[in-house]
Amino acid sequence: MMNGAESLVTTLLESGVDTCFANPGTSEMHFVAALDQIPGMRCLLGLQENVVTGMADGYYRIAEKPASTLLHCGPGLANGWANLHNARRARSGIVNIVGDQATYHHPYDAPLTADTAGLAGAVSQWVRTSTRSADVGRDAAAAVAAARTAPGQIATLILPSDTSWDAGGVAAPALPVPTTPVIDPFAVENAARVLRQNKNVLILLGNRGALPKAQALAWRIASATGATLKYDYVNGRVARGRGRLPIERVPYNTDQAIKVLEAFQHIILVNAKAPVGFFAYPGRPSIQYSATAQLHHLSRSDQDPEAALLALAEALNAPIVDMPNPGATPTVVRGAPTQEGLAQTLAALMPENAIVSDESISYGRGFYKFTHAAAPHDWLQLSGGAIGDGLPVATGAAVASGGSRRVISLQADGSAMYSLQSLWTQAREKLPCTTILLSNRKYNILIGEYENVGATPGPTAMSMLDLSNPDLDWVKLANGMGVEAARATTLEECADLMKQSFRQNGPFLIELLI
Amino acid sequence: MMNGAESLVTTLLESGVDTCFANPGTSEMHFVAALDQIPGMRCLLGLQENVVTGMADGYYRIAEKPASTLLHCGPGLANGWANLHNARRARSGIVNIVGDQATYHHPYDAPLTADTAGLAGAVSQWVRTSTRSADVGRDAAAAVAAARTAPGQIATLILPSDTSWDAGGVAAPALPVPTTPVIDPFAVENAARVLRQNKNVLILLGNRGALPKAQALAWRIASATGATLKYDYVNGRVARGRGRLPIERVPYNTDQAIKVLEAFQHIILVNAKAPVGFFAYPGRPSIQYSATAQLHHLSRSDQDPEAALLALAEALNAPIVDMPNPGATPTVVRGAPTQEGLAQTLAALMPENAIVSDESISYGRGFYKFTHAAAPHDWLQLSGGAIGDGLPVATGAAVASGGSRRVISLQADGSAMYSLQSLWTQAREKLPCTTILLSNRKYNILIGEYENVGATPGPTAMSMLDLSNPDLDWVKLANGMGVEAARATTLEECADLMKQSFRQNGPFLIELLI
Repeated sequence: MMNGAESLVTTLLESGVDTCFANPGTSEMHFVAALDQIPGMRCLLGLQENVVTGMADGYYRIAEKPASTLLHCGPGLANGWANLHNARRARSGIVNIVGDQATYHHPYDAPLTADTAGLAGAVSQWVRTSTRSADVGRDAAAAVAAARTAPGQIATLILPSDTSWDAGGVAAPALPVPTTPVIDPFAVENAARVLRQNKNVLILLGNRGALPKAQALAWRIASATGATLKYDYVNGRVARGRGRLPIERVPYNTDQAIKVLEAFQHIILVNAKAPVGFFAYPGRPSIQYSATAQLHHLSRSDQDPEAALLALAEALNAPIVDMPNPGATPTVVRGAPTQEGLAQTLAALMPENAIVSDESISYGRGFYKFTHAAAPHDWLQLSGGAIGDGLPVATGAAVASGGSRRVISLQADGSAMYSLQSLWTQAREKLPCTTILLSNRKYNILIGEYENVGATPGPTAMSMLDLSNPDLDWVKLANGMGVEAARATTLEECADLMKQSFRQNGPFLIELLI
Repeated sequence: MMNGAESLVTTLLESGVDTCFANPGTSEMHFVAALDQIPGMRCLLGLQENVVTGMADGYYRIAEKPASTLLHCGPGLANGWANLHNARRARSGIVNIVGDQATYHHPYDAPLTADTAGLAGAVSQWVRTSTRSADVGRDAAAAVAAARTAPGQIATLILPSDTSWDAGGVAAPALPVPTTPVIDPFAVENAARVLRQNKNVLILLGNRGALPKAQALAWRIASATGATLKYDYVNGRVARGRGRLPIERVPYNTDQAIKVLEAFQHIILVNAKAPVGFFAYPGRPSIQYSATAQLHHLSRSDQDPEAALLALAEALNAPIVDMPNPGATPTVVRGAPTQEGLAQTLAALMPENAIVSDESISYGRGFYKFTHAAAPHDWLQLSGGAIGDGLPVATGAAVASGGSRRVISLQADGSAMYSLQSLWTQAREKLPCTTILLSNRKYNILIGEYENVGATPGPTAMSMLDLSNPDLDWVKLANGMGVEAARATTLEECADLMKQSFRQNGPFLIELLI
């Protein structure tokens, strides 16, 4: 006779969810006990919930299947909310299991009681609260199906503690995942017409449109038609390096984006969003493309970009072509760190099939240009703009690749402080994670934004933008969480430490003073 | 001519809000610029938003007036949500300023766009989104009035960035704070009758009922009637030490609480809640008091406990009496750390008028008994059960007392990891904060809760409950954020470090291996 918690674990495993990123509390103890009883679920502890949810995001981006999280009550969900927001923007599928007060205890408004469903609804595409143990299995299967629904969704199942401990649990089989029309023949026909009739067409690739097969098809189409290819500014995962498209993203800076996009009178969107500013600025438009441009949706975010691009390539009779040659691989640069030099050094040393978790914020915006000729790799971006995803995403990506791929974090210091607890999980799980901690000791992006206001920051502003006084010592912080670390002040020191870290198992942090 | 941001700063100052705990982003840059222009606001940076909101909570508990926070968009609010939950339970007043996408930019669903109002509504008593610069001053004054409304409320003002930068801001004068009836004469009369007619009456003091004047009045009443006095399990602030009531809280453990409360057939609630379990447990009741007991509300949480208790003392003709003598002050204990020994050592060494921020979780539950004879001090508790408030609350309390009072954190290691970034703010602001970091390298409370399930944790469970492998090194973590630190393995080492830290300015962390 199962209890609700046991039916939950059995159902998750049955539905293919075999990894659980967790920070449990009292109301989850029966679930934890069930994990002890039923083998098959890999459980990984994060020391704060934004680490937990960020790991689940990174896991999905590489494994292409959802993990579960285990979170404690409304506040535990709140702590992990920001990285769920990022995951939602990256279109990652995640199954959140949120333990909560027992159904009959909820009305007593005990201290940890909160509006858990309200919180969940503000970030999830699917939310359900189980109300009796007999429903938990059914609800869990529905949650997994929702998380797997293209292009990947946040599904949150709230489990009052009595639904976990009560007898009468019933494990449920995996549910079929709802399908959407793979391609829209009219959209294909329209895009083909646009490409035949116009020059200066931009094909904008987003999310799964930035993976290798879609890239190759897009390159066929561009080669046959003269269209320009670009990526959305943010994507959950971009396949990069030799054999992949050496193209740029739409710039972050609105003025630059407008300048880059103004030439295009037609924009074909492949799982991409029409480019708008990350923020609004006084006197600048919200949209970054020409006001007279026409937008054409080839494939929506829940459709298959490969199928759509293949249909388009065939409609255009576009011949198969080799991917462009990005030229010689850069070599290691020496001397004081520069953005260009670090990017070239990274390209020179990056191992085959590495994963880059990029939360370099302002410092790394120009890295693309210098890393096209690196070994093939995946580049994971901060997709929702909520800082603090870089280290957790790196950690989850390393878990998803079973330790077989080197994960390199390009990590700004200000955002690293948001979820530095990730380093402990990297050490505990002995994950092959190399963090290049870009230490400039300020919120540099905000100093730029302040200057956009039209002035130089005064002392009050700098008290909120400057991270020195005292300086953070990242070698000590990493060591304090069991991660080996060293400081570099030149690119050759950084290169030596990178090489050293790529040879060894387990995590390593390089504090690069920039 | 003011812009909206300038009207906001002017209005906050006008309404008596002169401290801003901040972690700004792009959408707040005009507010930051206004803070540069208009003198009078003290701004303190927290490196993650749960530090920011927790500081505002600690500030209110000591200053008894609200500070503002500055948060960036939905995700910034989400990061600080858990400590807003704790603040709400502590009945602290806070004015949250949340910058957000411009009104006209919001529909474009840029990456950082989120359901900010939904998030805010799930934790705030008051929420408003300004829609034009001319309204910002008016809305800010209303937010401050809401935060000041008894007993203290969470007020969240969402500011689309164009309402900050647009001209036409109008500073508003401070609004009157809504008043509630101070006392209910019928409640006083009823309580007097209950106390005259019954033995075994419990007077339960909560929140502001745990401050010195209310304590003295409660003691008069108890001395005259033989009633028993206890505190709610959680309170934002309890005045303790010599000259204060040497009484206990209702226990956390439900079985113990039921045992302690079963004798009482009448419970008089003074700004307290009727005792219910922190969590439900299978087969145990939700309420911890006798099912046949009568509850009598002398004063609600929004009423004045001192006025109600004074009226009750007078109705009973209760004579003024001296506060009980708690006996001799304990002396420093030597040897391996024990809960009792640490509490006695703390009582022996605590400076006059210290503030204790207690997030000791399981280890510190018995500290009350051994610290009644310490020098007078204030004890701040984790009020909402969302771990991670101890260090931020300590930091904010130190800010509120202008550095004139020593703040001692009794801090469990697992919860310290939730908001360790607080240490950096302590170092930056040179605050007199001594952290006693109770390092047991496990989520000990949860191991107890697991055992309540009826079993010993197996390997999967322990992988989520054990914090060793690798051990956290708190000396390195503190040093990495600029805080001096040392490790102690005996109580005499801990005592020596405490004495050393109390003599010096600025923060100090003692990692006590327990």
